[in-house]
Amino acid sequence: MSHRSAWITSTFALLVLSSGQLFAQIQQDSLIGGLLKTGLGKGEAFELLEELTSKAGPRLSGSRGAEIAVEVTFKMMMDRGFDSTHLEHVMVPRWERGEVEKATITSAGLPKPLPVTVCALGGSVGTPAEGVEGSIIEVRTFDELQTRAKEAQGKVILYNRPFDPTHLNTFASYSGAVNQRSQGAIEAARVGAIAVLVRSMTGMIDDVPHTGAMNYSDEVPKIPAAAISTQDADLVSSYLRDGLDLSVNLQLSAKTLADVQSANVVGQLTGSLFPNEIIVVAGHLDSWDKGTGAHDDGAGCVQAIEALNLLKKLGVKPKRTIRAVMFMNEENGVRGGKQYAVAPERKGEKHIAAIESDRGGFAPRGITVHGDSTVVGRVNRWQPLFAQLNAGQIGPGYSGVDISHLVDQGTPGFGLDVENHRYFDYHHSDHDTIDKVNARELELGAIVEALLCYLISEEGL
Amino acid sequence: MSHRSAWITSTFALLVLSSGQLFAQIQQDSLIGGLLKTGLGKGEAFELLEELTSKAGPRLSGSRGAEIAVEVTFKMMMDRGFDSTHLEHVMVPRWERGEVEKATITSAGLPKPLPVTVCALGGSVGTPAEGVEGSIIEVRTFDELQTRAKEAQGKVILYNRPFDPTHLNTFASYSGAVNQRSQGAIEAARVGAIAVLVRSMTGMIDDVPHTGAMNYSDEVPKIPAAAISTQDADLVSSYLRDGLDLSVNLQLSAKTLADVQSANVVGQLTGSLFPNEIIVVAGHLDSWDKGTGAHDDGAGCVQAIEALNLLKKLGVKPKRTIRAVMFMNEENGVRGGKQYAVAPERKGEKHIAAIESDRGGFAPRGITVHGDSTVVGRVNRWQPLFAQLNAGQIGPGYSGVDISHLVDQGTPGFGLDVENHRYFDYHHSDHDTIDKVNARELELGAIVEALLCYLISEEGL
Repeated sequence: MSHRSAWITSTFALLVLSSGQLFAQIQQDSLIGGLLKTGLGKGEAFELLEELTSKAGPRLSGSRGAEIAVEVTFKMMMDRGFDSTHLEHVMVPRWERGEVEKATITSAGLPKPLPVTVCALGGSVGTPAEGVEGSIIEVRTFDELQTRAKEAQGKVILYNRPFDPTHLNTFASYSGAVNQRSQGAIEAARVGAIAVLVRSMTGMIDDVPHTGAMNYSDEVPKIPAAAISTQDADLVSSYLRDGLDLSVNLQLSAKTLADVQSANVVGQLTGSLFPNEIIVVAGHLDSWDKGTGAHDDGAGCVQAIEALNLLKKLGVKPKRTIRAVMFMNEENGVRGGKQYAVAPERKGEKHIAAIESDRGGFAPRGITVHGDSTVVGRVNRWQPLFAQLNAGQIGPGYSGVDISHLVDQGTPGFGLDVENHRYFDYHHSDHDTIDKVNARELELGAIVEALLCYLISEEGL
Repeated sequence: MSHRSAWITSTFALLVLSSGQLFAQIQQDSLIGGLLKTGLGKGEAFELLEELTSKAGPRLSGSRGAEIAVEVTFKMMMDRGFDSTHLEHVMVPRWERGEVEKATITSAGLPKPLPVTVCALGGSVGTPAEGVEGSIIEVRTFDELQTRAKEAQGKVILYNRPFDPTHLNTFASYSGAVNQRSQGAIEAARVGAIAVLVRSMTGMIDDVPHTGAMNYSDEVPKIPAAAISTQDADLVSSYLRDGLDLSVNLQLSAKTLADVQSANVVGQLTGSLFPNEIIVVAGHLDSWDKGTGAHDDGAGCVQAIEALNLLKKLGVKPKRTIRAVMFMNEENGVRGGKQYAVAPERKGEKHIAAIESDRGGFAPRGITVHGDSTVVGRVNRWQPLFAQLNAGQIGPGYSGVDISHLVDQGTPGFGLDVENHRYFDYHHSDHDTIDKVNARELELGAIVEALLCYLISEEGL
């Protein structure tokens, strides 16, 4: 049915086009056919993701996994004969979780100590070996914390504001909750608290904690911060509602080591007419140290490689340079993205577009355009083509963290928009493994990116 | 981003509407808000599906599971206080797989007998206890079978045409392969073969066989028919390519018993102005006897109940009757759908629309319209509303098997169109269980159906 409607759209489009446009239209339709045949028929995105996640495993910046990921993806692009492949070195932070992450609740009202499931938030300081211990205060907002500021002195703050499930887009639910994780330790330290437990950033109720970045301020003490599983957050909350006084002992062995050298991995099909006009298609190579970062963002990396691979297999010689960039360190510093935008290698290059896939390897729905309304309008002229791939939902929106520094310099940004209902079930947790990725959905994302790269390369923006 | 674009669309729509239309538009927007808040916030579709699949389990027509499913869904609708709930009895076939389904390959070229993974196709006759045994001939098409007709006498035919993965829509891949399952035994018997093995109807390569309906003809012998896992189909094929002569012993204990009485389960919100104008929203209650039919079609059943439930919770008193129908026996006879269309209960009723969800409980993308182009056009006037639910892809297409008999009588049919990349990974196999269903995606399908029911009820078609 979608086929027929797309056919009607594109046939109608043919009728109103001039002959030059007609030629372009025929080329575009034939490219879409080729992308579907080659991509869905014998695409490599899923195999690449299997290779990346099995060889590198989790790959937090500065880890051995991240180092392997650089080598593996460099080799993937070399092996596929891209016009050039190189590394751009960047210094990255190195944080380690260590062996211990443990929280135990005690209360006169409980028959025995109750272990709850936690994991250190990324960047957290560790605790002394015997842990930090204090009474628990539960809050849902920073305002609520302020009203209880006096009480908070010496306590452990449980931030327990859940995802609002009523948003259609789960990224809106995430945005509405994530300041508890990112700013919670700062706000808690400001009122004299000694540690924070943060409800995991997910709409799922289960016993798996979700890590993620947290921040400190030099103005207040750096206190330990851990995510608690949604199931245990609900349990603790129910005890507090029942009037129990709860204490928690939190033990974390996390620590931050000296920065280490890592790299962005870059490969490209060089433009035949305008080699210095660059279209970046990107993912980030680092992941958290839970799961294997299959959706976040192994998917985006292999899709970028596969987008170039598909165009190459189809014999496309792009007018402008199409460049796959696997950025390092999106999760805890964005050093790769920041450096790429200002590196000496950028001299003489003009970045005309930057595309990122960092919302999981799910079925694509369309493209979010991170630029002014002129750009949205210009991309919308291709809407019927993307509709042929079931990805015709094009509108303003965010692109991606890594490429946001290019966007800040005036490069239009594009985000691959996907079905995101399942994303935060897995995100930053042991659940984010390749068995949650569907090979067709992943490949189709690469196909959409390949088409967008091609259109920008041939027609400009 | 999709929010913003939807907001722009609906704001623009407001500006060009007359005041009556404006009122309707405001009501519709507020209904969409209410559906999202109530559905995504505290929807019941997933709980209903858990209840159905855990209490009834697999529910092939005539089985105890099917009987429980009738009771459970009847009670679900009674408990929710729909305006009326009743059963419409129907006689259904009763086929049983029995305990034995076993295939063993032997060859002078193999060190020992090789068991392969099979399951009886639905409706197959059984074999003698010692099995049927013959050499294997592999074909991919009926044409190829015809060219080898002489050779086929006394042999076992392996139909091994895989899914064509290059279709964007997996239903197209299924359509291109399924005649091997549905007609394979007839065509094989016509050339004197003694049994058939059919490559499982899935694009996945694994060791789980997928059952499904097969047919016999009275003109030729009824020979046993089994699905073989894709992994073992590939293995057998590779041995044949290597030049091995293979025999197979196939043992099936399947049998067909006498028809038994079952029922369609019907509940409704009765129309306030036109009670005899009916909008059916449907799924089928029976499933295959592998897995628990969570996607096929437990999802469609609970979505139909939930669609009414949501409208009732939001205080909607529909002008026309909105009726949830759980049809019995879609999988192997469609007796429920056929009988519903002609039953005495239909007297005085006018069916103005029939909606079915039978493509799995995945994220909805839109609606396929099974009717003439006028109907497509009329539904398309609501496209901006469905786009607010990320389900704006509206075009001509099939609706559903159960409601096709109403469509044949002139009722416009509508199919809930969903992301279908994963569907045939699970379909008709042990994989089709509730852990493959995402609660938000399932609920959103119910929300889309509720909106479509409401719009047709208030505005007609």
